[in-house]
Amino acid sequence: MKYQDYFRSRLDTLRDEGNYREFAELERHRGAYPRAKCHSGEGDVTIWCSNDYLGMGQHPDVLAAMHEALDRTGAGAGGTRNISGTTHDHVLLEAELADLHGKEAALLFTSGYVSNWAALGTLASEIPDCVVLSDALNHASMIEGIRHSRAQKVIWKHNDLEDLEAKLAALPLEQPKLIAFESVYSMDGDVAPIEAICDLADRYGAMTYLDEVHAVGLYGPRGGGLAEQLGLMDRLTVIEGTLGKAFGVVGGYIAASAELCDFVRSFASGFIFTTALPPAVAAGAAASVRHLKASCEERTVHQARVAEVRAQLDAIGLPHIENPSHIIPVMVGDPVKCKFISDTLLRDHGIYIQPINYPTVPKGTERLRITPSPVHTAQDVAKLVTALEALWTQCQLARQPIAAQ
Amino acid sequence: MKYQDYFRSRLDTLRDEGNYREFAELERHRGAYPRAKCHSGEGDVTIWCSNDYLGMGQHPDVLAAMHEALDRTGAGAGGTRNISGTTHDHVLLEAELADLHGKEAALLFTSGYVSNWAALGTLASEIPDCVVLSDALNHASMIEGIRHSRAQKVIWKHNDLEDLEAKLAALPLEQPKLIAFESVYSMDGDVAPIEAICDLADRYGAMTYLDEVHAVGLYGPRGGGLAEQLGLMDRLTVIEGTLGKAFGVVGGYIAASAELCDFVRSFASGFIFTTALPPAVAAGAAASVRHLKASCEERTVHQARVAEVRAQLDAIGLPHIENPSHIIPVMVGDPVKCKFISDTLLRDHGIYIQPINYPTVPKGTERLRITPSPVHTAQDVAKLVTALEALWTQCQLARQPIAAQ
Ligand SMILES: Cc1ncc(COP(=O)(O)O)c(C=O)c1O
Ligand SMILES: Cc1ncc(COP(=O)(O)O)c(C=O)c1O
Repeated sequence: MKYQDYFRSRLDTLRDEGNYREFAELERHRGAYPRAKCHSGEGDVTIWCSNDYLGMGQHPDVLAAMHEALDRTGAGAGGTRNISGTTHDHVLLEAELADLHGKEAALLFTSGYVSNWAALGTLASEIPDCVVLSDALNHASMIEGIRHSRAQKVIWKHNDLEDLEAKLAALPLEQPKLIAFESVYSMDGDVAPIEAICDLADRYGAMTYLDEVHAVGLYGPRGGGLAEQLGLMDRLTVIEGTLGKAFGVVGGYIAASAELCDFVRSFASGFIFTTALPPAVAAGAAASVRHLKASCEERTVHQARVAEVRAQLDAIGLPHIENPSHIIPVMVGDPVKCKFISDTLLRDHGIYIQPINYPTVPKGTERLRITPSPVHTAQDVAKLVTALEALWTQCQLARQPIAAQ
Repeated sequence: MKYQDYFRSRLDTLRDEGNYREFAELERHRGAYPRAKCHSGEGDVTIWCSNDYLGMGQHPDVLAAMHEALDRTGAGAGGTRNISGTTHDHVLLEAELADLHGKEAALLFTSGYVSNWAALGTLASEIPDCVVLSDALNHASMIEGIRHSRAQKVIWKHNDLEDLEAKLAALPLEQPKLIAFESVYSMDGDVAPIEAICDLADRYGAMTYLDEVHAVGLYGPRGGGLAEQLGLMDRLTVIEGTLGKAFGVVGGYIAASAELCDFVRSFASGFIFTTALPPAVAAGAAASVRHLKASCEERTVHQARVAEVRAQLDAIGLPHIENPSHIIPVMVGDPVKCKFISDTLLRDHGIYIQPINYPTVPKGTERLRITPSPVHTAQDVAKLVTALEALWTQCQLARQPIAAQ
């Protein structure tokens, strides 16, 4: 087999379909975020698609904690958690996270992806005869974890309680069950009916596993996520989150009972056999979590900015998915136009919004996923909306009837 | 099902078998490494089991690069590589790594674990009908990646060329093949016959995938690993490495042809759907790679220190696996004694060596895995050997005939 030819032909197919990804090469300016230098284009751009939702990656407390930990302990952890890699900073962060979610314990992973993959993979494979009931739109990391476990998997229609109940009822009552879902779905920005899912879980003896990756830091009085906002944290068996989005650093975790965390800690290959996060990363993340527990201001301004962008898009009839979250998916519905708009925004307007194409979203639902943050100004918003309006006209894209908004 | 009871019973079983892991909670002192504060025990300890093999996690260039990047760009990357998370620092690091291994390209992952899992998983599943020939002692991350791909897998006896050839010959010549192995095996410290494996790969039309996690930074004139030392880098299809061990920070990568890296970049779920490493981590790792390309001193002193520890262990007949690498596995062969020795070293001697028990190594081969570094002094070595000698007597463990050494 001619391996190189094969790779090339697969890449060519991606290009032909308009699905080849080109990465924009950025360099943020500390203190000036959402501004960044764009090495792939020319000059400075305003980032409108970051998952550093609150700008915490620039927060002085976070940076100070990271500088301090570097000075105190050095760069890396130097080992797996078991073999010399557990530092005081890891232990403090896990305590901070357990407290954030009102759980007995938390367990840190190198990323949110690894936390989902390893925790779901371990629970589903190590609990004999476990069946996983997985929301149809779950994130790739959950899907891969479940797939890896080789446990029985039942997919229920996205956010559809009736379908979930039918599928729970069809299983033997005594069979171990795990319902896996997200609070805020990152591409559509819609939210799960968490309470009703917990009710079903209780009724059918299932555990619940909630991915709050796009909600931690952002919702709830202390940033504990949507489950905190709704007073439901104690109803969930596992809450999973990331330290790389609203908390602005990197890493992932689960929060749960002491036994469950200890179980995953003891059996998850993806936790055991890998170098621990640098202590400075743990210290920075802990500072971020601590700050957002005490301060609501970032969340308040964030929500206001999101509402403002939505209102201005509505005023000119630009189609975006209505949802109760902070994610604004502006729908284009064509991969080539989506990329064209994104390229033009970058080149002519200094605005960076990565086009979201297949396979991240289904074909035909290509979009610009806009994530306003507290550090975007009113002027930034005005510039964005004006640029989008011009491009919508240029590309002859459909608008929504403005009266219907 | 009573989930909590089930978790508890499995944890109890681990405890009964002596395989329950307790993490030592450390806090390194910058500048004073290998010294660290032990929060779980009392006072200061000397770490003898770190994978920060050269002490690069304390190197001023690495720390300066991380401080500088934090000040320049902030804490996290704020997105996946595709959606706003590719920074200038990531691009520079990938170029540094491609150059290190004499390859066209390199691709960065959040860890060495993820790089193996995602790269092997993607190659083996996306190349139609691919069969993976996997060394029997490959690391968990490779095993999980191959397992995840659901490709056909053929396990060959550890480092056994005859067995590998027999297995290659038994497969149809035109079937795509990938031989996956390591250069330095981390628990026994033995090394693979890389050249002969490449010869077989050529003969049977197979790709080669070499994990150099325990060799990068440590071997070769520029720290390119064992393949560099042996002048074989261009014979390997993929070289995989970590930034978390000899390079002292965190992260993982593959280096290969531009097409192969682009292929993995485009299809690997574990690469695409996760937040990129913080720019400061990339900058620190790049500084470390750059330093070890230019400086051989760390490698020279490292090898001398390893030889010194080996000689002193030999002088008192303490059994350790003979191997050509920097890893010294001192064999205990009993999980309870292994843990007792480790606990006593920590409590009475201020020496930290994590016991390595099942499942990391086979039952009956429990060991203390000693990793000398250039920052251990002659006095540290003397203290270590004296303490081990006393404990060997106390535990009535077998010694090797001293004359036979
Ligand atoms: C729903 C969801 N879960 C998990 C992840 C992975 O988290 P991380 O970026 O920390 O790996 C992501 C995105 O990256 C996500 O969107
Ligand atoms: C052989 C081998 N490959 C890969 C890894 C994973 O690398 P990382 O620690 O960067 O995840 C390890 C150890 O952790 C290893 O020993």
